[in-house]
Amino acid sequence: MKNWEDLKNILVEFRNERDWERFHNPKDLALALSIEVSELNELFLWKKSEEADVEKIKDELADVFAYAILLAEKYNLDINEIVSNKVLKNAEKYPVDKAKGTSKKYNEL
Amino acid sequence: MKNWEDLKNILVEFRNERDWERFHNPKDLALALSIEVSELNELFLWKKSEEADVEKIKDELADVFAYAILLAEKYNLDINEIVSNKVLKNAEKYPVDKAKGTSKKYNEL
Amino acid sequence: MKNWEDLKNILVEFRNERDWERFHNPKDLALALSIEVSELNELFLWKKSEEADVEKIKDELADVFAYAILLAEKYNLDINEIVSNKVLKNAEKYPVDKAKGTSKKYNEL
Amino acid sequence: MKNWEDLKNILVEFRNERDWERFHNPKDLALALSIEVSELNELFLWKKSEEADVEKIKDELADVFAYAILLAEKYNLDINEIVSNKVLKNAEKYPVDKAKGTSKKYNEL
Repeated sequence: MKNWEDLKNILVEFRNERDWERFHNPKDLALALSIEVSELNELFLWKKSEEADVEKIKDELADVFAYAILLAEKYNLDINEIVSNKVLKNAEKYPVDKAKGTSKKYNEL
Repeated sequence: MKNWEDLKNILVEFRNERDWERFHNPKDLALALSIEVSELNELFLWKKSEEADVEKIKDELADVFAYAILLAEKYNLDINEIVSNKVLKNAEKYPVDKAKGTSKKYNEL
Repeated sequence: MKNWEDLKNILVEFRNERDWERFHNPKDLALALSIEVSELNELFLWKKSEEADVEKIKDELADVFAYAILLAEKYNLDINEIVSNKVLKNAEKYPVDKAKGTSKKYNEL
Repeated sequence: MKNWEDLKNILVEFRNERDWERFHNPKDLALALSIEVSELNELFLWKKSEEADVEKIKDELADVFAYAILLAEKYNLDINEIVSNKVLKNAEKYPVDKAKGTSKKYNEL
């Protein structure tokens, strides 16, 4: 099992078996995604990165991917395509000669 | 281009060309992920799902995937493995006969 | 001007002059609050606390309070009352003798 | 008990009794705030506004205020002042004649 399509199929099957599609409108899927990301962030709260529990990170990050994939599915998006396209846009916003070694936002470069 | 590895390689190359690895500790990557998810959610603010701008959703969802993949890369996680494992755990928390057609949390089923 | 009521009145007047009450259902107000909190968090991204821009923090934290107050207003909540009550609950979850000097969650104490 | 100062004093005392000031740097306080806001948003997930549990909203919104007040305290901010100042700025960004009855962002007005 190597690609997005496989995961998407597993997640859609899980959803459909439970008849959850009725709840999965894009607005609520995006909200669910934000809640999972928050649970991931909580693993780092009051801590340094290296103090976080990696086993819990796996679980929370998995939930993040799950909702992100389900949201992409709602719009029939090709994940490789949207990410590749965005990297190209970001390369224009953050040209290597200006962005190298700085964490500034593009509008401050 | 069909799988996570390809995207990971593109993102790592983008990061390394800009010498950004120094900023990319897991805690800040998780925080960056939460900020991108918030930008995605903003596209639905004060709106119904169908009023959101799909082109903007593509861009923001792409950023979400980008940081999620970069965070997975930090821990050398296999995305298919962690998501598949989490689906199995969720199947136990949400058995079909109890979870079907309800949006209740597992601890309320 | 010393209390919540004054701020609430300013915010409600601002809202009503713009005829925005129609958009301000609790679900979207909570979402707006999350977006403002994310903008606040972005001021700390890739940084140590002391590197963040305090003037920007003032502005973003102000937006956080604004939406939190408007959400409280929707339910006619007395902010002092709900916070005081929650502090009492938290005092039970985090008794001084167990919680002193540790950042553990109550269910791990 | 009617104003910010009273709540701030309660919260600071609660914090200091537990020796938690060591954890409460601004970056982590902002992160804690985002986690509480996410728990508040979860009360609306898969639901309409009116289906959310108001008693739980009180508790989660209280936690939001608590961390927002503690963050303001870190910078010795006067909450009435920062919110009033931000309302004035927002009044410029959203003049009544342009912003009335629309949920557009200021840069789209």
